[in-house]
Amino acid sequence: MATQNEFKQAPHKLLVIPGPIEVADEVLYANAHPSMSHVSPEFVAAFGECIRMTREVLFSKDAQPFLIAGSGTLGWDQVAANLVEPGENALVLHTGYFGDSFEECLQTYGAKVDQIKAEIGAAVSQLHIENALKSKKYKVLTFTHVDTSTAVLSDAKAIADTVKRVSPDTLVVMDGVCSVASEEIRMDAWGLDVVLTASQKGLGTPPGLSILVASQKAMKVFESRSTPITSYYASWKKWLPIMLAYEKNTPAYFATPPVNLIYAYQASLSQITKSYPTLEERFAIHQRVSQRVKNSARGLGLRQVPLEDACAANGMTALYYPDGIGAADLLPRLNGKGVVAAGGLHTSIKDKYFRIGHMGITAVDAHRGDIDLVISSLQEALAEAKANKGV
Amino acid sequence: MATQNEFKQAPHKLLVIPGPIEVADEVLYANAHPSMSHVSPEFVAAFGECIRMTREVLFSKDAQPFLIAGSGTLGWDQVAANLVEPGENALVLHTGYFGDSFEECLQTYGAKVDQIKAEIGAAVSQLHIENALKSKKYKVLTFTHVDTSTAVLSDAKAIADTVKRVSPDTLVVMDGVCSVASEEIRMDAWGLDVVLTASQKGLGTPPGLSILVASQKAMKVFESRSTPITSYYASWKKWLPIMLAYEKNTPAYFATPPVNLIYAYQASLSQITKSYPTLEERFAIHQRVSQRVKNSARGLGLRQVPLEDACAANGMTALYYPDGIGAADLLPRLNGKGVVAAGGLHTSIKDKYFRIGHMGITAVDAHRGDIDLVISSLQEALAEAKANKGV
Repeated sequence: MATQNEFKQAPHKLLVIPGPIEVADEVLYANAHPSMSHVSPEFVAAFGECIRMTREVLFSKDAQPFLIAGSGTLGWDQVAANLVEPGENALVLHTGYFGDSFEECLQTYGAKVDQIKAEIGAAVSQLHIENALKSKKYKVLTFTHVDTSTAVLSDAKAIADTVKRVSPDTLVVMDGVCSVASEEIRMDAWGLDVVLTASQKGLGTPPGLSILVASQKAMKVFESRSTPITSYYASWKKWLPIMLAYEKNTPAYFATPPVNLIYAYQASLSQITKSYPTLEERFAIHQRVSQRVKNSARGLGLRQVPLEDACAANGMTALYYPDGIGAADLLPRLNGKGVVAAGGLHTSIKDKYFRIGHMGITAVDAHRGDIDLVISSLQEALAEAKANKGV
Repeated sequence: MATQNEFKQAPHKLLVIPGPIEVADEVLYANAHPSMSHVSPEFVAAFGECIRMTREVLFSKDAQPFLIAGSGTLGWDQVAANLVEPGENALVLHTGYFGDSFEECLQTYGAKVDQIKAEIGAAVSQLHIENALKSKKYKVLTFTHVDTSTAVLSDAKAIADTVKRVSPDTLVVMDGVCSVASEEIRMDAWGLDVVLTASQKGLGTPPGLSILVASQKAMKVFESRSTPITSYYASWKKWLPIMLAYEKNTPAYFATPPVNLIYAYQASLSQITKSYPTLEERFAIHQRVSQRVKNSARGLGLRQVPLEDACAANGMTALYYPDGIGAADLLPRLNGKGVVAAGGLHTSIKDKYFRIGHMGITAVDAHRGDIDLVISSLQEALAEAKANKGV
């Protein structure tokens, strides 16, 4: 039997796509936890701890977490089905692929959506946001903190400030799938009403858990809605009693939770919230590592998709291929060196750029040498590709 | 590093609630798979194999599987949002707790639901089904193959036969959460249009995967719907291209799949479909084990919740406590002997009965001695409880 201390994951290529990310041995071992009853005292306690630690990661005192089996996408359904009533207006800030998807999700549940679309590589300006908020009453404003398709980082605090100033009733909904635990997020201090995310990026856990945290203000808006909730699986009416019960160490049942994944999430959250580095230091490390990757790329003559440093993510880097080089030239060569990076995702520039993730243990645990390998492999692969293409 | 052959899960109490069930070491090891890209050739191949093996378990040639991060409950949303248009009629056969939940889910998406409610412990009679089908045009009929709250087994083939004879356009939707891989299901031969289930019961995998298989007839009904699909995360319009692509060994993206859980599911499906016992023998073993548990319970003077043998599940047993004995007398004593069983779930009789699961490796792998332990522990715990209460 492999005890936790003995368990080491199998050798494998370094996964540096912008999620799923590399997962620590302790977390994978927890994912191989023997089967447990979802209503056992041991599991209920683990679930309750996950709820509390989720709040800690976002520096929130009293927001309400929802931990539900599903992908990050399920968070959009939760917002659309619980917070927006059919016919109400939603304002979607678009900084890449995920803005379009969130819009489509909101429309599916009956919202009337306006989009403010930034040019590729830019964030939406506060002036545009202010003008839109003045033109119409919006129930929610949504934005993608880091759009995984472009690596564009939006200024969450500035957006929340603008909303509070111009349209204080509008709920500020942040898609933090690619930012939670790799970018600083101060949910209460900044006045974010919803932060939704998933387990497989900065939170360092295998994929399969939808994680959403709603402010008490958002919960009040939810409770005062006048029309029925338009989803069953994503209904907070079903899940709220479960989350409240589990946090109070009492079992409750709506649907079977992903027991093993909750144990894995608990293991990862414990590393993030209870051991070195502190959360603040974790964010600083992500910034330093990001600068190192971006500087190296600049040294190799590679241009970032984000147009300015101020709107470039700290957990990932999106880079245009140099002239004459494409995905087929670079990515298989990186793969051959044991580094799995990601191709493009944003439809308009899909074949023109690639993406590297540097979140979680890859960024924080320098002893792993992940970033060294990424940088040296990128340098070598690029040189080989250029030599091969004669560019 | 623990290789697959060396990995053994940590010692733990025997979990014999009717799901989650005990999971094999190989499956847990696969759940601790190193992080992999969800679009890597290795993972795409594993996903494709899971799709094909899911079909095999149901003896289907061409039905369309959907494997989505979520609990079994998400399968109801898939049915309600994709197959039933608002205002259409649905007939729900009720043999326990899960009939009420499925009804509520269908209503959430706008269906008009009629329920035929069997008395507790009985299945719905074919005559009642026939009369209901003659009275009104139903888009779907839904039933719970094994209702986990009562252990009542419905006759899937007879229900499908009745529908084909009386109302051939009505889609036959089976909730197989507590029956797939522990009860015989012949999807094509019996004419079932949807079988929905989850990973954590007969399929022997940790919880967190919603598994649904739709007949080509159901897919045609889906494709010909005239109103928009009323869910985003559960939309087959989004998921169908993904499932088709992965089965053809091509990556595609809608939402990040639960990569580790898919590897675990692949490991369990491989045991179920590719090694001894055969599927037919697996069902026969579940029947023999079930008889053994039920005979022992009878020997102890315990009465089953199902009123007749013909409607008693083969993967679980639901038993009334004897007079003078309650949950607090029996379940903690069983737990003290290392056996975790489940209390009641059906609201009307919640405190009067308990449930034991005997699915997957607990039933099939006699060398584990799980059933011996369950039977001896039940005998001892009951004797102690009676002695303590003086009954």
